[in-house]
Order: sequence, then C-alpha cells, then structure tokens
Amino acid sequence: MTATFNPPIRTLMGPGPSDVSPRVLQALSRPIIGHLDPEFIRMMDELKALLQYAFQTGNQLTLPVSAPGSAGMETVFVNLLEPGDKVVVCQNGVFGGRMKENVERCGAEAIMVSDDWGRPVDVDEVRRVLAANPAAKALAFVHAETSTGARSDVQALTGLANDHHCLSIVDSVTGLGGIELRVDEWGIDAIYSGSQKCLSCVPGLSPVSFSERAAEVIRNRSQRVQSWFLDLNLVMAYWGSGEKRSYHHTAPVNSLYALHEALVILQEEGLEQSWARHRHNHLAFAAGIEAMGLSFVVSEDYRLPQLNAVTVPENVDEAVVRARLLADYGLEIGAGLGTLAGKVWRIGLMGFASNRKNVLLCLAALDEVLSDLGARIERGAAVTAAQHFYRDH
Amino acid sequence: MTATFNPPIRTLMGPGPSDVSPRVLQALSRPIIGHLDPEFIRMMDELKALLQYAFQTGNQLTLPVSAPGSAGMETVFVNLLEPGDKVVVCQNGVFGGRMKENVERCGAEAIMVSDDWGRPVDVDEVRRVLAANPAAKALAFVHAETSTGARSDVQALTGLANDHHCLSIVDSVTGLGGIELRVDEWGIDAIYSGSQKCLSCVPGLSPVSFSERAAEVIRNRSQRVQSWFLDLNLVMAYWGSGEKRSYHHTAPVNSLYALHEALVILQEEGLEQSWARHRHNHLAFAAGIEAMGLSFVVSEDYRLPQLNAVTVPENVDEAVVRARLLADYGLEIGAGLGTLAGKVWRIGLMGFASNRKNVLLCLAALDEVLSDLGARIERGAAVTAAQHFYRDH
Repeated sequence: MTATFNPPIRTLMGPGPSDVSPRVLQALSRPIIGHLDPEFIRMMDELKALLQYAFQTGNQLTLPVSAPGSAGMETVFVNLLEPGDKVVVCQNGVFGGRMKENVERCGAEAIMVSDDWGRPVDVDEVRRVLAANPAAKALAFVHAETSTGARSDVQALTGLANDHHCLSIVDSVTGLGGIELRVDEWGIDAIYSGSQKCLSCVPGLSPVSFSERAAEVIRNRSQRVQSWFLDLNLVMAYWGSGEKRSYHHTAPVNSLYALHEALVILQEEGLEQSWARHRHNHLAFAAGIEAMGLSFVVSEDYRLPQLNAVTVPENVDEAVVRARLLADYGLEIGAGLGTLAGKVWRIGLMGFASNRKNVLLCLAALDEVLSDLGARIERGAAVTAAQHFYRDH
Repeated sequence: MTATFNPPIRTLMGPGPSDVSPRVLQALSRPIIGHLDPEFIRMMDELKALLQYAFQTGNQLTLPVSAPGSAGMETVFVNLLEPGDKVVVCQNGVFGGRMKENVERCGAEAIMVSDDWGRPVDVDEVRRVLAANPAAKALAFVHAETSTGARSDVQALTGLANDHHCLSIVDSVTGLGGIELRVDEWGIDAIYSGSQKCLSCVPGLSPVSFSERAAEVIRNRSQRVQSWFLDLNLVMAYWGSGEKRSYHHTAPVNSLYALHEALVILQEEGLEQSWARHRHNHLAFAAGIEAMGLSFVVSEDYRLPQLNAVTVPENVDEAVVRARLLADYGLEIGAGLGTLAGKVWRIGLMGFASNRKNVLLCLAALDEVLSDLGARIERGAAVTAAQHFYRDH
C-alpha cells in the first residue's frame, strides 16, 4: 500500500516554483464549488480585474490559462500565428529557443536574433532585422530571462515593433510582479506569465493578456487555431464578460482560488511596493555575494532582482553544493540551464520568498558549504555585508 | 480592495467537478517543494504506479498531463496523428464531437459514426465503417459519455480496432474509478481521463496511458508534434523512469500531491470495491427517481452509475429547479448539454460524492422543489424507495 505523501519543508530559492504563502495554500484548500456556479463566476470577474492590475492593462482579453507557463507561451503563438507567417524571435537564453520551437510548430518561420546568454536583447540588431523583414507579423522576446537573470528593454523593443507595424509578443513568466511592467503604457500586444514565480502562487496557471489589436487578429484568423484546448475564440465563451458563460473545459477551480488570493496579496502590498521590495532584497543579497568574492553573470544595469545567476567558483562542483544546501538547510537553489549548465547557480528571490530571512539564510548556508568544500571565499563576510545593507537602507 | 474569496459550501452532484475529500484538500495545501526535488521525483514514481493500478495497466507511458481532461484528449490526438491520417470517430454525445474537432485540427480526417445521444456506440456500424476504411489509423470512442450517461462496450470496440490493425483511442474522463475499466486486458492503445470525476481530485489534471504499440507510433513520427507543451517525446524526459529527469515544464506540484492522495484513497478502498459502491448508490438513487415517477434517458443495460441523465418532467423549467436546489440546499446538479439541453438534468454520483447521504439529500430536495413547482410526481416516494433499497441490499 502506498502511504500519504508528506513533503519535506523546504525554502525555495530556485528559478521557481517559489515559496507559497500560507494564505495562498489555505485558499487552495477551500471547499470546491462548480465551475459554472454563480459565486465562482463572480470570483472569476474579480480575478480578471486583479490580473489587469498586475499587468497594468485594461485589456479585456486577460485571463489565466488553465495550464503552466509553457502552455501560456503556446496559447499566444497558436492564436496569433498562421502557417507561413514570419516572426522575429530574440534569443538570449533558453526561453527564446522555446519561442522558436513554438513558432515553427505553428508552421510559421522564426527569424532569429541571437544574443549572448546573460545579456539583454540587442535593440539595434532587432531594428536591423525588422527593417530587413518588412513582412514580419510579430516580434517576440523575453522580458525576464529565467535561464540567465537578464532583463531586456521592453519599451524600446515594443516601440520598434510598433514602428514596423508588427505585433509585440512578450514572455514575462518571471517578470510579472517582480519588476516594472506596464502592458498598456509600453504598448505590449500579447504577454504571458506564470503563477509560480513572483506571484508566489502554486504552479499550473499562466496569466495572459492581449491588446485589442491582437484580439482582432485572433478573431479574424483565416484558419482555425491548431489547438482546441488553447483556442481563445472558444475559451472566451467561458472567460468573457457576457451574461452567459458557456462550458469550454473544466476550470481548475482550487488553483484559481489560490491565484485570486496571491493577487489579493499583491494588491494589498501594492505593485510598485512589490517591485521595490524585490529590488531591496536583491541589493542586500548582491552585497553579500560580492563581499564573499563571488560574482554575477549579468551586469548590474540589466540584472533581474528576482533571479540571481551567480558564477560557480573554480574547482567547485556546483551539484554538490546544491545537494548540501538541500540536505543540510532544506534550501533549494537552481542549477544553470543550457549553455550555463554547470557554470552558474540560479538563486531566486521571488514573491513571498523575497525577504530578509531568506537572503540571510542563503548567504550563511553558501558561506558554510563553500568554505567546507575548500572554495576560496571571504569567510563570514557575506552575512555581515547584507546586514549592513539592511541597516543602512 | 478585493477581499479574500470564501466559497460557499456546496454538495456537487453535477457532471464534475465532484466533491473532493478533505484528505485530498489537505494534501493540496501541503508546503510546496521543487519539481526536481528528489522527494518529489519519488512521489512522481508512486503516482505513476498508482495510476497504473487505477487504469489496470503495466504501460510505462502512464502519467498525468498538467492540464484538464480536454488537454488529455488533445495530448492523445496530437501525439498519435499526423496530417493526412484517417480516424474513425464515434459520436454519441458531446465528447465524440470534441474528438472530431481534435482530429481535424491535427490535419487528419475524421470518419464519423453517429449514434443517437443516450445510446452506446453501435458496434455493428463501427465494424462496417472500419471494413470500408482499411486505411484508418485509429478508432476513437467514448467509454463513458459525460453528456448523456451512456456506457459503450470498450472490449467489443477495441476488438474491432485490433482486427482492423488500427489503434484504439478511448475517452474515459468520467469512467476511470467509477466503472470497470481494464486497459491491458481490454487492449486499449491510448486512453485519457480527468482528475475531477470519479477520482474526486480537484480539476486540472488529466491521467493518460499509452500501450507500447502506441508509444512506438509516437517515437517514430515523421513530423514533430504540433504542440510543444503536449509533446510526449519531450514530456517523457521528465516523467520517464531514468535516473536523470530533465526539466520540460514546471509541474503543478500541489495538484499532483492531491492526485496522489486521491489515488491512495482509491487503492485503500480497492478498485473493484469502488466500482461496486458507485453501482450500489446508483441503484438506490434510481429506485428513488423511478418511485417519484421520473425516468432516465439511458436504458439500464448501458447506464453509467456515476452520471444519471434524468428526464425533466413536462411543464417544468429545468433551470429554475437547478437554481432552487443551489439556493435552498447548496446542491449542484448539472444541465443537459447539446441536443439534451433543457430536456435533462445530469446528476453525478462520482467518487467521494457517491454516498448514501448525497443520494437521500438529492432525492429529498428534488421531491420538495418539484412538488412546489407543481410537477406531477409521487410526493414522498423517492426517499422511502431509496431507504428500502439500502435496507435490503
């Protein structure tokens, strides 16, 4: 007989999922009601308004896709693209590559702009590529690269898309709630995010939003969307604002309670205060990391506060360090992905997990484990530096 | 400011989601751990074994898709089909129609076998259509039609598929855990289900299983799967049994805790005991419904015990009855779908909700509300008949 699973207690400081607030876990476990219950429909309306706030948008077509962030990405591409379309895709990490996969699986062509991993998307290069491809239907790029911790300049890139009369598609899976993001003011046409990063909800939902211009493209497609499950023309019959909500698929009721609560918490804190908190804790953490003698992959100007890619010191096996942190401290940090595998750790300070306690725990634990493994670090300096930062700021 | 959402307490006797056990809600709200945590990987292995038990299969390719049942359906079709393939699709309710949508969106051709709603798939007609279409790659049908409450003869249909050397694809969203289902013994090649029906887990996951023959078809495709998110060649790098689990998408960690617990409960009860319980409570309910003077859409021989389509009496507005049940009793029953809209109620007795208390509550509440609305029923007879059934059986 299999027994009930009792998970160990962890502190999640990887690239996501991040720690979830007890309030959100409590919301998750409230009694289920029907997905067409009038009270549930009312909750959906609130949830939509809360998402509009988080995205800073008035877009009517704003909703959580009933599946993880990768499905949010796919929702954007399969709804906006048709076979033969051309899309300029910027890649400066893993997730630009996933966009390419999605574009190609729609029968469309991805024109790649490749940047070094750990750097933002090169705006000048995008300008050149867009000029050389006047038929491009969209420009797609990642706001906050989860694989490297680099932030790209959304406003500059959407401005280029607008100049070239093409749609802008933005991946902000790791951005939403953690750094400045203003969908309407920045002229974003389509954006997707994840529930389990800076919103600190459980994984499994993907908030998306589409401008009226993008919604028009979806409504006026010449071919049906290749995915039935993700076809927004159908999903909107359920998430739309009309009187009559018709069944499309069974909504993940309890996960939506949790997302509602996570967004209520964000609203209580205030969006700008949340951005400032992420920055504040990152600066304290960075002070500690640098005092220890370690360095960041991404330069300060475009570094994400919520996702810290820290270079593994020479002669240290990064996997051993992660295993020790997990075993001795119940602390999870992330490995590098793709070209950065083995070379970096990805240390998240996302949402509920972006707090002073976690910053100090992580620095103290890294200090101990690295010293023990004989790495050349400045022993004891990290925690002190972070404490000084907190005292002075 | 938006407040925390506190759902009302309901009894869910619609077509799903069904009531969720407090044990499952508790599992759902346990602290989150990482989706690559060794303890989580161990939980996934247990979950896979529990799903194999529920499906009665040794299929290695058995896993929960990270999205609702509709995405499970799409997973099966997009992985098995390629453009130009022909599939014989049986339709005897809403969900056969959804299969057709999926087949066509894969660029394949659906050859339809249409039956009256409320009746099982006609085996003789399928035999004729398969004989006339020797190039058919698959035969697809619904085991347990959630829109009508009819059960089709899986063994007869998979036997035909086997005779014609084509794959069998089975929708058992509402079947799994509630009625007999033996994937290996019955020779099913691909099957999908839902978490929120007879497993009484929260909605948002879709268990699927593929025979070795079907897995071979997926491994040997000539084109890539059109969905990146649902591509099993990629998903298996995470759910596979190898030492190294690589990241594909972020698993819905807490929902998987819940599914694990729901399956532990099923294992504790025993699969055959669960099937018997569903049948027992259905018979008590049916005794009451018939004593009241109401009738079933589906004849007894192929009626699903977990989904009771009851004909709305003349001169009764079915929506008024549902609204009264919800307002006065906190009781949700379902409306008719498609051609049965307005004509039937769909009353679920699924999983945790298939119990004596719910049978009596629903009969008593229907008795009261229908009498009050002036429907011609046998007042008071329903509860007594069900009590007699329970006493005698």
